[in-house]
Amino acid sequence: MNLKDEIGERATVVNEELKEILAFKGLKIYDAMRYLILAGGKRLRPVIAMLSCESVGGKKENAIPFAVALELVHNFTLLHDDIMDRDGFRRGMKTTHVVFGEPRTIIAGDALFALAYEEILKLKIKPEKLKILLKDFSVMVREIAEGQDMDIDFEKRTDVSEEEYLEMVGKKTARIIKTAAMGGAIIGNGSTEQVEKLAEYGRLVGIGFQIWDDVLGLVGDPKRTGKPVGNDIRRGKKTLIVVHGLSHADEEDRKTLLNIVGKDDVSDEEVENAVEIVGKTNSIDYAKNMALGLVEKAKENLNVLPGSDSRQVLSMIAEYCVGRDK
Amino acid sequence: MNLKDEIGERATVVNEELKEILAFKGLKIYDAMRYLILAGGKRLRPVIAMLSCESVGGKKENAIPFAVALELVHNFTLLHDDIMDRDGFRRGMKTTHVVFGEPRTIIAGDALFALAYEEILKLKIKPEKLKILLKDFSVMVREIAEGQDMDIDFEKRTDVSEEEYLEMVGKKTARIIKTAAMGGAIIGNGSTEQVEKLAEYGRLVGIGFQIWDDVLGLVGDPKRTGKPVGNDIRRGKKTLIVVHGLSHADEEDRKTLLNIVGKDDVSDEEVENAVEIVGKTNSIDYAKNMALGLVEKAKENLNVLPGSDSRQVLSMIAEYCVGRDK
Repeated sequence: MNLKDEIGERATVVNEELKEILAFKGLKIYDAMRYLILAGGKRLRPVIAMLSCESVGGKKENAIPFAVALELVHNFTLLHDDIMDRDGFRRGMKTTHVVFGEPRTIIAGDALFALAYEEILKLKIKPEKLKILLKDFSVMVREIAEGQDMDIDFEKRTDVSEEEYLEMVGKKTARIIKTAAMGGAIIGNGSTEQVEKLAEYGRLVGIGFQIWDDVLGLVGDPKRTGKPVGNDIRRGKKTLIVVHGLSHADEEDRKTLLNIVGKDDVSDEEVENAVEIVGKTNSIDYAKNMALGLVEKAKENLNVLPGSDSRQVLSMIAEYCVGRDK
Repeated sequence: MNLKDEIGERATVVNEELKEILAFKGLKIYDAMRYLILAGGKRLRPVIAMLSCESVGGKKENAIPFAVALELVHNFTLLHDDIMDRDGFRRGMKTTHVVFGEPRTIIAGDALFALAYEEILKLKIKPEKLKILLKDFSVMVREIAEGQDMDIDFEKRTDVSEEEYLEMVGKKTARIIKTAAMGGAIIGNGSTEQVEKLAEYGRLVGIGFQIWDDVLGLVGDPKRTGKPVGNDIRRGKKTLIVVHGLSHADEEDRKTLLNIVGKDDVSDEEVENAVEIVGKTNSIDYAKNMALGLVEKAKENLNVLPGSDSRQVLSMIAEYCVGRDK
């Protein structure tokens, strides 16, 4: 079984639907809505939703509108996130607000969000299940916003704990992957236990995914990641590596690291210095190991499923999330 | 019958629910979410939804979650709108992004939007009706964004037609009032004809409301409106008055007006000059008369309803929208 093919096959269906529903003409807002989402992306969230549906015995086709809705919301949050973080590049491209301006990008995000609900309403499932999905989906978006809020808040704080970091990441990044896995299982008519275990699978994979992202941001190849090295440090982000580094460095290193992470204009030399400090505290290895451990736990949750290709792909995706180089 | 009391009585119920669902603690995002919405406002959209429900024989209590959802979305669009227009004041208060910063205000808007769906899902109505409401609600938000997009676009254009202005306003302002009136009638189990006529009532009132807003922005008392005189002109907005003025002024006045509306920094003297030009073309009277005419048409749609207090209040609200001084 080839992971790339398994993902690609499902992503293609999602891409087709995305192209169709975003093919509006005339108004400029739709150019801004299409720009990032149709430029590519792994479609990890939609694919997990479809696989989750299949893994409990459902048909992947039935999950498509839900899968598409997840990708729409994911991109809507990226548009707003990039404005908030003043990021100029994503996936090696200029960000949407750089190309289309902030006003248009704000409302393009809003419209993608609205469109996500239009998609979910296309699902052919029982009304009570639709209500459960819609409720979870709405709470999800609110919690993503809460996670983003914590992320902003942490930038100014020097005492962020690992627990707080994990709560933030659980909302900002993992919540949508949890919803993807859980929603897919609901659509596929999974048992209550299967739905719960798949939700937990998604949550753990999501946290592992974000921690791995933190690692890549610091020691990844910018040609692969599409982001400049040390981007998080330049933006003052309290990643797990920084949080761990700050609580394990000696007094002098801690001061230096805090100073670099809190600065407005960070030089390449300072980024190198920060990497050196978190190297001394083994914080990069610590983060890597935590991500790997989370994914192991995530995979255990798949034991509730009968043996199948989709289950195997879900397991491979979990491993991919903490092994990828981009 | 006292209009203020009729509105106030219904607004109070909405305010209570808003206070309850926004009483989250801890995260700063909730302070930004509460700031504008709990500071007051006419609650016109929720009240119209409740009245519409009553006017077809439904109980207003049944419409409360829907009414609250409308107010949440209204405020979410105001938060994003004020960032986009760089407005510093609304209702005589500093705008949310001035107090809480743009990043937090962007996600506070997103979270209010998500919360609106959580509210709608509290409705106790038949699943097929819930789906119709949710679909319309989602399309509404997308169309509001389209209207905002046109509004931004028009700022740079010199040839906006009256037809284009009306399409923009139909989306940006009137669409939510249409949904309020229509949704209330659906919740109240109105007939298909009643639902359609109330939708049209809402649409026409909404356009009249916006045109009246354009008038107030130019010749209203800033102490009453809470906005500086000539705010729209300073922001380069193509209001109906400006659109009409540009197409009816002589060549010299047209050039002067275009120059003022297109400028970055407009002086008080220039605002006065613009008012003088659109006075010469009778554009202010033209706008006032159009607003009054729309409201007359709006009221005709109420003939489909049996005689009742709620019908009378809907009629009075329509008149209020084009007679108010704030």
